Amino acid sequence: MTGHADSGRCESPLLGNRSLAPISPQHPGWAERREPRRPVAVLGGGDFARSLAGRLLTAGHPVVVGSRLPSAAAALFPPQVDVTTREGAAGGAARLVLVAVPRDHFNTLVPLAEALRGKVVVDVSNRDRRGDPGPSNAHVLADILPEARVVKAFNTLSAWSLQHGPRDASRHVHVCSDCMEAKAEVMQLARTLGFTPVDMGSLLSAHELEEMPLRLFPEWRMPVLLSLGLATGVYIYAFLRDVIHPFIVKQRNEFYRIPVELVNKTLPVVALMLLSLVYLPGVLAAVQQLRYRTKRRRFAPWLDSWLHARKQLGLLSFFFAALHAIYTLALPLRRSYRYGLLNEAVHMVHKRIDTTWNDEIVWRMEIYISLGIMALGLLVLLAITSLPSVSAALNWREFTFIQPSPFRRLFLPLPSHLELL
Amino acid sequence: MTGHADSGRCESPLLGNRSLAPISPQHPGWAERREPRRPVAVLGGGDFARSLAGRLLTAGHPVVVGSRLPSAAAALFPPQVDVTTREGAAGGAARLVLVAVPRDHFNTLVPLAEALRGKVVVDVSNRDRRGDPGPSNAHVLADILPEARVVKAFNTLSAWSLQHGPRDASRHVHVCSDCMEAKAEVMQLARTLGFTPVDMGSLLSAHELEEMPLRLFPEWRMPVLLSLGLATGVYIYAFLRDVIHPFIVKQRNEFYRIPVELVNKTLPVVALMLLSLVYLPGVLAAVQQLRYRTKRRRFAPWLDSWLHARKQLGLLSFFFAALHAIYTLALPLRRSYRYGLLNEAVHMVHKRIDTTWNDEIVWRMEIYISLGIMALGLLVLLAITSLPSVSAALNWREFTFIQPSPFRRLFLPLPSHLELL
Amino acid sequence: MTGHADSGRCESPLLGNRSLAPISPQHPGWAERREPRRPVAVLGGGDFARSLAGRLLTAGHPVVVGSRLPSAAAALFPPQVDVTTREGAAGGAARLVLVAVPRDHFNTLVPLAEALRGKVVVDVSNRDRRGDPGPSNAHVLADILPEARVVKAFNTLSAWSLQHGPRDASRHVHVCSDCMEAKAEVMQLARTLGFTPVDMGSLLSAHELEEMPLRLFPEWRMPVLLSLGLATGVYIYAFLRDVIHPFIVKQRNEFYRIPVELVNKTLPVVALMLLSLVYLPGVLAAVQQLRYRTKRRRFAPWLDSWLHARKQLGLLSFFFAALHAIYTLALPLRRSYRYGLLNEAVHMVHKRIDTTWNDEIVWRMEIYISLGIMALGLLVLLAITSLPSVSAALNWREFTFIQPSPFRRLFLPLPSHLELL
Repeated sequence: MTGHADSGRCESPLLGNRSLAPISPQHPGWAERREPRRPVAVLGGGDFARSLAGRLLTAGHPVVVGSRLPSAAAALFPPQVDVTTREGAAGGAARLVLVAVPRDHFNTLVPLAEALRGKVVVDVSNRDRRGDPGPSNAHVLADILPEARVVKAFNTLSAWSLQHGPRDASRHVHVCSDCMEAKAEVMQLARTLGFTPVDMGSLLSAHELEEMPLRLFPEWRMPVLLSLGLATGVYIYAFLRDVIHPFIVKQRNEFYRIPVELVNKTLPVVALMLLSLVYLPGVLAAVQQLRYRTKRRRFAPWLDSWLHARKQLGLLSFFFAALHAIYTLALPLRRSYRYGLLNEAVHMVHKRIDTTWNDEIVWRMEIYISLGIMALGLLVLLAITSLPSVSAALNWREFTFIQPSPFRRLFLPLPSHLELL
Repeated sequence: MTGHADSGRCESPLLGNRSLAPISPQHPGWAERREPRRPVAVLGGGDFARSLAGRLLTAGHPVVVGSRLPSAAAALFPPQVDVTTREGAAGGAARLVLVAVPRDHFNTLVPLAEALRGKVVVDVSNRDRRGDPGPSNAHVLADILPEARVVKAFNTLSAWSLQHGPRDASRHVHVCSDCMEAKAEVMQLARTLGFTPVDMGSLLSAHELEEMPLRLFPEWRMPVLLSLGLATGVYIYAFLRDVIHPFIVKQRNEFYRIPVELVNKTLPVVALMLLSLVYLPGVLAAVQQLRYRTKRRRFAPWLDSWLHARKQLGLLSFFFAALHAIYTLALPLRRSYRYGLLNEAVHMVHKRIDTTWNDEIVWRMEIYISLGIMALGLLVLLAITSLPSVSAALNWREFTFIQPSPFRRLFLPLPSHLELL
Repeated sequence: MTGHADSGRCESPLLGNRSLAPISPQHPGWAERREPRRPVAVLGGGDFARSLAGRLLTAGHPVVVGSRLPSAAAALFPPQVDVTTREGAAGGAARLVLVAVPRDHFNTLVPLAEALRGKVVVDVSNRDRRGDPGPSNAHVLADILPEARVVKAFNTLSAWSLQHGPRDASRHVHVCSDCMEAKAEVMQLARTLGFTPVDMGSLLSAHELEEMPLRLFPEWRMPVLLSLGLATGVYIYAFLRDVIHPFIVKQRNEFYRIPVELVNKTLPVVALMLLSLVYLPGVLAAVQQLRYRTKRRRFAPWLDSWLHARKQLGLLSFFFAALHAIYTLALPLRRSYRYGLLNEAVHMVHKRIDTTWNDEIVWRMEIYISLGIMALGLLVLLAITSLPSVSAALNWREFTFIQPSPFRRLFLPLPSHLELL
């Protein structure tokens, strides 16, 4: 490492032997000279292997593909790709070998263990379902290839994203390995392919990486189902009370209330219910802490998952409240509102009423509107601080200032003399 | 480093001597074999020490706690924790020692200097108040333990966040140290505990890290107080002019205007005042630069802090403008509006007015609404580019395109021949 | 590297020979002793060089400036800066040399090649225009100084941001180099100057870094021009149809519709057109894939750039839809609406119409409003997941769940038996 201070240039593992002779900016062959990168081997002939090969070619890496049936696979790859046997690809010049083989066929890699000795082997495989308690695919591969330096990477990408670049979706490629140098090489490869590598530490994180692409908003499922259930219940109650009851009792046809008024009656009720569900678990947790006089007793599983769902419940509460605001503002746009107003004016003329004014009703409405807007403004601040980039910029003191919780307040430190035990 | 290419696996400092024998995925003892991690020592018996110990246990690390009164402290920790003397914990097998001792008691660590020689010592302590000019806690610790490799980390977390995981708040653990290897080990530890380590460079950043948890929106305090003061003043003026004056002079009761109309008169005035306060300091700075014909004269402290508060003033201006928009849209919802309309219709019938139309008033209102909405649209774009993740994705040229400032425009480059001096 | 475990402290390249003698927290000279950092050399006398020098001084680094006319340049720098000849600065004690010289004058650095042997040379230069196919400035410099360790950094900052700190804009300093150690030193320097370094890998990224500051929303240009063009066309059509035609045919003066009603007729039409432009290219791409029975044929350039503009088209569609919502909500605020209502009430009284109610019109309006608000709510969710920090937190499965695209759905995997070739 200290030797580098004397040599003018440090070697980069992904670059070939870059000549040090000066080149002039106008040198015509410059763009080509810049390209010669080390070859990268890909084992496998599936969709993901082909997308990987295409992306590597675009970034200027020579690609060697190792297939069990090279003659059949050759037709599936672009002509620039060198398709050969698995043994040929693994034993060739490539120092980086991407293994695009499903876990069920890892045992077919056993004969390659010697050829891959000392090489950087990247496991890109995924699992079929969440919560599998066994070892990660990367650990299985590391046990099959004990002399290779196994890196887990690229499994969080889709074949689409690999082929077309990470335009809209996440640019992140999560990488983990027990070998720092192998990890650095794969992170550099991810950069040349146009992604942003994220260092996830040692191979112990492989399990987490393999769970990642299987997630589908797990923390949102319960809160969304709950709020949809609440909304349905409240809506049906409002429908029976405001439409069916007057229709049966007084034969009044008020079915036109269905699309707007009933929805707008449902929204604030659900928003308030969800808001109370945000604060209730903290109170229950505090009660348990006070009852058992300890903070170290674990909460019951249902209470624990409820505590963890508070952010989602709060955001859904905000979503319902915001919809309520828009529905309310849209009320005067309705034709029914206009007809009601016109009919009331004509009615006043007929009844010879000169002016109408009820101070109590006026005040009630003014205060209701003002408080409603201010409550919405507060919920907006809460929602903004829930954005990942904003909350990451807040320290703990600022976060609890904006998003107070009775639970956190009750989490008092023990008497300070205990600190010195 | 070059030796790694031959050895099949790189050693990770946090893992024990992981056996290289192949394990099958179905191997029943796999989940346990994966766990054996190096023990971590924690010095201290306070709340933070206990939260650290609990989190380390959850992540699979054996924990040794060093306490001055081991027999008393043992009751405070879970049974899996090995509670011993400080000397025993510091001199044991653990290579990583977390020091959860307040700075006032750092001198009690002097006897451990020899036992901690060459170990990675993590200072998690915080300060009591901001702006302390003395050396950072981490530097004091490094001077007490000159042979230890001191790392500053975890001080930005709360005990709550340590114990329950960083669910909602920031996952970031800021780490700094003069020793790259020690820092890498602590960053890896943070990852296994479920946090995202952020490399803050050398131990010189420790001072900044210790200031972090003490911040409470320092850059927001003045702008918020200022805008609240302005809003109060304008509201009182509007109250006197629109409610008290007509009440005294004409005995007209217009108190119902208090919740909505007066608030809605205050909001746009304050929004415009704040917007002018965003642009004014840039003009003053430009005037100073033109007057002294130099750009290198420092601005007066008040002007400097004003220049730095422009983003906050702009966002508050947007907040008031957005509230004004919602209040305005809510005006027709009020009962007073409906009564006014009905009374005017009846009045027209009585006065035998067939149609009413004032082209000037119509045009004024249409233009006012259209311009208001467009101004709000522009402010929304400004506010979105203030979100951390959006502004980080913009380059300087794009940022100044969206958020122009007279000050920046006036920061002209000097004549280009000076570049070559 | 293994030697570090024994030495108590690792040397940091940016710090001087920090004495290891213990210092007490109350030691009066502490603040000064903490400062002695290695000198940094800056070559050049332009605006950027002066900003760099000022920022380095503020961070506590001694600064040596190398100028071709030291006597003339000395007046331009603060007195603490040591202004000398270029040879003197390059050959001095500084290990880090920042080259603030435009590329056109790089050849004047040839005589310094020997003095800069083994030093870390940072190229901060930029290009004049985008899309230059030649080698990057950093590569040209590396060819001129073959024995120096060239790092590309700081070119994405403005002189203003350097001098005043990265308050509002991006804190990111992108760094790339073929030499890991040199890169680490420059990243540490960036941190001490208050920026957040971003590792961009090897010097091959220099080209990309030099393109960065020249970008001005390249991916937004076409979508914005297109939507402005569409909006103008639709507005003119609406103006001719709703204002000019009734004026000519029936002599009705409806010019007051220009500011609000015509704008509000234009907005939803453009929003729907843009939304269809989001989905159309995916359909065309699918048609091509089905026609040629392959997924590996490249799309035509126009189709490719259209596919890549879908995110921008979608966000503009949302922007127009949101403006439409606000304009619609503002309709009852207009004076013309109030006059129309009053005149209709008086008209009803005169015509002796007691009540007015058209069930079909009522229902149509209620459904229209309800569907409109729900569509807006969906578009808001789409827009939120387009925020960089939110989309980075989603995996591919979640992203496509929220932002479905017919194109992605059609990107089906090949039959799975091919995976094993």
